[in-house]
Amino acid sequence: MSVLTRPILEINLANIIKNYKTLQKIAPKSIAAAVVKDDAYGVGAQKVAECLYKKAGCRCFFVAHGIEGEQIRPFVGNSTIFVLQGIGEDSLSSFNKAKLTPVIASPEQFEYWKKHKIEGIKPAIQVETGLNRLGFRESNLKKLSDDDKKEFSMIMSHLACGDEKDHFMNEHQLLQFDKLKKAYFPKLKASLSASDGTFLGEKYQKDIVRLGAALYGINTAPYRENQMIPCIKVMAPVLEIANLEKGDFVGYSATYRAATKRKIAIVSIGYGDGIARSLSNVGKVFFEKKSLVQEAGIIGRVSMDNIICDVTNVKNLRIGDMATIIGDFYTLDDIGRDAGTIGYEMLSRIGKNPRFIRIYR
Amino acid sequence: MSVLTRPILEINLANIIKNYKTLQKIAPKSIAAAVVKDDAYGVGAQKVAECLYKKAGCRCFFVAHGIEGEQIRPFVGNSTIFVLQGIGEDSLSSFNKAKLTPVIASPEQFEYWKKHKIEGIKPAIQVETGLNRLGFRESNLKKLSDDDKKEFSMIMSHLACGDEKDHFMNEHQLLQFDKLKKAYFPKLKASLSASDGTFLGEKYQKDIVRLGAALYGINTAPYRENQMIPCIKVMAPVLEIANLEKGDFVGYSATYRAATKRKIAIVSIGYGDGIARSLSNVGKVFFEKKSLVQEAGIIGRVSMDNIICDVTNVKNLRIGDMATIIGDFYTLDDIGRDAGTIGYEMLSRIGKNPRFIRIYR
Repeated sequence: MSVLTRPILEINLANIIKNYKTLQKIAPKSIAAAVVKDDAYGVGAQKVAECLYKKAGCRCFFVAHGIEGEQIRPFVGNSTIFVLQGIGEDSLSSFNKAKLTPVIASPEQFEYWKKHKIEGIKPAIQVETGLNRLGFRESNLKKLSDDDKKEFSMIMSHLACGDEKDHFMNEHQLLQFDKLKKAYFPKLKASLSASDGTFLGEKYQKDIVRLGAALYGINTAPYRENQMIPCIKVMAPVLEIANLEKGDFVGYSATYRAATKRKIAIVSIGYGDGIARSLSNVGKVFFEKKSLVQEAGIIGRVSMDNIICDVTNVKNLRIGDMATIIGDFYTLDDIGRDAGTIGYEMLSRIGKNPRFIRIYR
Repeated sequence: MSVLTRPILEINLANIIKNYKTLQKIAPKSIAAAVVKDDAYGVGAQKVAECLYKKAGCRCFFVAHGIEGEQIRPFVGNSTIFVLQGIGEDSLSSFNKAKLTPVIASPEQFEYWKKHKIEGIKPAIQVETGLNRLGFRESNLKKLSDDDKKEFSMIMSHLACGDEKDHFMNEHQLLQFDKLKKAYFPKLKASLSASDGTFLGEKYQKDIVRLGAALYGINTAPYRENQMIPCIKVMAPVLEIANLEKGDFVGYSATYRAATKRKIAIVSIGYGDGIARSLSNVGKVFFEKKSLVQEAGIIGRVSMDNIICDVTNVKNLRIGDMATIIGDFYTLDDIGRDAGTIGYEMLSRIGKNPRFIRIYR
């Protein structure tokens, strides 16, 4: 008997707090800021921000957009909320209402800021050190007046290759950052690293580390065993079990054909729920019963609402059983790799569909 | 001067209505049902359902999950709302509240239905004809009693290869469907085709066609020119323009290196907004000024909030200009192909991030 039809997303807030505290120990001299942009990578920015504020003492948050800052403000007291994409016409009211702090990345943004200053707020300045994304280039830093420079409260940049311990870009960006700070903002607080850079050691940690992916359990230092613990589990019910005859096709465009008799399970989750279509004929799911974990491959194309799994060798499977899609032993990093991408993108996709049954622990 | 920081998603409801009417003409003898599962593939199920109900006379809708049916009920009067993933403990209250019609796909589901019947509702039965996804296999149809068979109001199945005109599976599934209908449900209304099958001609259209992807502008008959018109436009602002020197790297993991001096634009949209990371170093964006459309390639990795574009050859570009990510000349099908997937998956991802400025036209 099928008892559920919807997929389940479990979010373990206690584990996010544990990850936060582990990261604090790795960067003990730095302020540990929480990055909760993109709805905390999909797991719920309000919940995550609230629990880090109340239970872990976090007082500094980063979001991408003003609207995201406005959404978390009621849950983080007077914490500083930095907005990475800066300030514009479409976010000005959020900045004013929620007392947000823009990260200014260009002279044009800075001009806009000077016309729309918010009392009591001193922006951060982002400088470009090698990623070639948002940030003041040195040619523009040179044009800032002394008064201009006094507008800012923090200088930051972002590493391109922080997840590769020995990549030459790390040292290059560090030197560039230190040089720019010394030349233009010697007295400001500094922030260079996100989660990945935090693992590169004290030199990279500066005054503020910006903890995103690692908080959510992603291994941002993949050259070593993951020190983070998973914070999400994704499950979905088996709606149907059926047999394939030799020669039967499965799924759209008939991309799978049974070479022998097989048993299949239809599981109620698909790319509409963030299970990448690139997992077609590649991904896998798991059936957990007590300590026994049985693996089943995804066969045929992932469709919007369903995946089909080869359960020929899965014992005692019944309709209504839950397939584990992401769990402790098959993590975001694992499914990201199998999908040809990274855990970050998987996490950001999952949970955006409101049809998930969402459980916070 | 940057005036916007957020990406924009424009949804043209009038074009969805036009597509609906075009499809009605293609299947003039069939009831044209609208598939609005997965929040109408991300464009907003309530808005789409309401406009098709009020302005196009649509009286039959399909969703995947009970919760989705409950969400559209206030906007579609007494229309029939079929729920493709069936009925379960987690959706029973939605079925009761919103008078939804389950699509029953297995004996176990049918047992559950018989215990939890809803007055005035007669379910549909899904039968398996070759897709090997959800559906009664013939072995189970044989076990239905005459009374069981009277429970149902409609028989349906789903094509595996309807987007390939001459694929042998189409004829195979049609024959199988007709055979099962004749043997078990000769008097019921029938539905075999989604958008793709609708284009295969009258034999495939049966009593009800289930129109999803094509409504939203996707070409579900890619062997011919698209007869549908686009219904979404995605744009994002240029936050910054900068120069690269020969040898400069761009983005995470430094996957792009400038072979000559280049000019780049940082555009405020990323995989957090559904722009697949697989577009890294592959995708493109467009700058429209009056009738001039200028193309710029995405260089380096797509990040969560930003993409970086090579705008060396784009004339008169300024900070604040909007890049077109998806539009009339670069459609969902185009970006899906470039991302190594299909327009369906792209559409389902885009618009799930509430930080889009969402505009209905």
